[in-house]
Amino acid sequence: MAKIIESIPNISEGKDKKIIEACVDQIRETAGCTLLQYTSDPSHNRTVITYMGSSEACEEASVKLAKKAVELIDLTQHTGEHPRMGCVDVMPFVPIKEATMEDCIALSKRVGERIAQEADLPVFLYEKSASAPHRVNLAKVRKGQFEGMAEKVKDPDWIPDFGGQRIHPTGGVVGVSARPPLIAYNINLGTDNLEIATKIGKTIRQAGGGLDCVKAMGVMLEDRNIAQVSINMTDFNVTPLYRVKELVKAEAARWGVPVIGTELIGLCPMQALFDVAEYYLQIEDFDASVQVIENHLL
Amino acid sequence: MAKIIESIPNISEGKDKKIIEACVDQIRETAGCTLLQYTSDPSHNRTVITYMGSSEACEEASVKLAKKAVELIDLTQHTGEHPRMGCVDVMPFVPIKEATMEDCIALSKRVGERIAQEADLPVFLYEKSASAPHRVNLAKVRKGQFEGMAEKVKDPDWIPDFGGQRIHPTGGVVGVSARPPLIAYNINLGTDNLEIATKIGKTIRQAGGGLDCVKAMGVMLEDRNIAQVSINMTDFNVTPLYRVKELVKAEAARWGVPVIGTELIGLCPMQALFDVAEYYLQIEDFDASVQVIENHLL
Repeated sequence: MAKIIESIPNISEGKDKKIIEACVDQIRETAGCTLLQYTSDPSHNRTVITYMGSSEACEEASVKLAKKAVELIDLTQHTGEHPRMGCVDVMPFVPIKEATMEDCIALSKRVGERIAQEADLPVFLYEKSASAPHRVNLAKVRKGQFEGMAEKVKDPDWIPDFGGQRIHPTGGVVGVSARPPLIAYNINLGTDNLEIATKIGKTIRQAGGGLDCVKAMGVMLEDRNIAQVSINMTDFNVTPLYRVKELVKAEAARWGVPVIGTELIGLCPMQALFDVAEYYLQIEDFDASVQVIENHLL
Repeated sequence: MAKIIESIPNISEGKDKKIIEACVDQIRETAGCTLLQYTSDPSHNRTVITYMGSSEACEEASVKLAKKAVELIDLTQHTGEHPRMGCVDVMPFVPIKEATMEDCIALSKRVGERIAQEADLPVFLYEKSASAPHRVNLAKVRKGQFEGMAEKVKDPDWIPDFGGQRIHPTGGVVGVSARPPLIAYNINLGTDNLEIATKIGKTIRQAGGGLDCVKAMGVMLEDRNIAQVSINMTDFNVTPLYRVKELVKAEAARWGVPVIGTELIGLCPMQALFDVAEYYLQIEDFDASVQVIENHLL
């Protein structure tokens, strides 16, 4: 069985279709890669590309994408709401099938080294690939953004992992990582009171002493006039979907507010949904790898 | 993408390892087939084989299995608790991937015709493949069993679909069908009162005016001293798992009895579990074919 890895590079261009397509073409044209989706946000001026493939195919596609991005994207001219430090801003690798986290860490290091050599872009390793604890968190690595990065890398704590103690003059630096699959899961409340969603977000998130591997905040869905708890789950094996849903439901009940629906944004690993079914159905001794028919086709 | 069909032939031998292995070998040795499992029940004197493959591979394996079974299994010598009418008793085909029910019906007819010709076994088509409404239900087709079948086929209503108005003297007749995936799902109650499980079973099953495509009965799990509602779901697209679980839970509450666990026996299609997750998480606008990562690998 072939090992399959997912990668979700974010490039710092969300408006210019020609540049975006030229970058996405690097994935399309790499044998062994399957492009799953790409979404451009003009106000963020950023495009998120999702694809998967063998380790070797992901390595090739990553290096080609970095070369194309550094050729076409000039960070000195870039504005956008989303923080960014490089023409390819981040490049995470996620184990999907047969592949382990160790495979993804090894891949991220090979890719980091090659991007530094072949695209002349210094690279920070972060998340599971981080070379030191203070480099695990992407927000900390990216702090200062492109504009502050030339100064930041002079600090011995922030020398890039590959490519030397410098930044690329127009391409900045690239963050490369291995991480578990991220799930974007939003919970809609039967209220127009944003404050309630905000309070629930603060209560359930890891940073507020809530659930591990959960990031959450309250947002307003203006078109529906309802408040939403917007959630990023960074490891569903640590905190499963049902626990987040049930905790939000319980907290909302404190305000007499019901959960009226939820949204699963983008892609999700099947195991995350099997875990939900197993919990609610109270299944004893379930083994999805054997009992789910389609698992025998993967 | 290749069409994948599952088949679950039941042969009338559950004790003699040599005969069982010789029959299972017909699946193992057919290129394009993957044997998933086989389970022999000595008291039923019956073996259930589960495999999947392309339509062509399933056809070859089916014909080979019928030839081997008629050679090795003599129904005139067969005793067992489970009703049976043939050496291969039933041979259902289930659409798994890309394949439609129509593909499975067409396959069942090709297989029926070939089994009659090449293994000299008359064939009844049943379930979705049935040639008349009174032949849909397997229990009705099989009524009289092997011992009564020679007489039964004299009735114009019960002439086999293939192979003539007769039975094979030692092999009987074979039931061949197309059907949706069957899910065996048992719900354990926090009581040792079998009567409660029996009442719940009668209430929720289709035959009792309950849920469509649900068969249910109460059984006692002697080793755990608890009562169980034992359930067969013949079409999870009509009645999903969560509805059965929630209805049993609600009915059990009438007696002050909790659901303490459930069992998913054997194989289950992933969509049946996605439906459960979608319901309990209250996901809006979920499309598993796009949003579940592994669906892009199938």
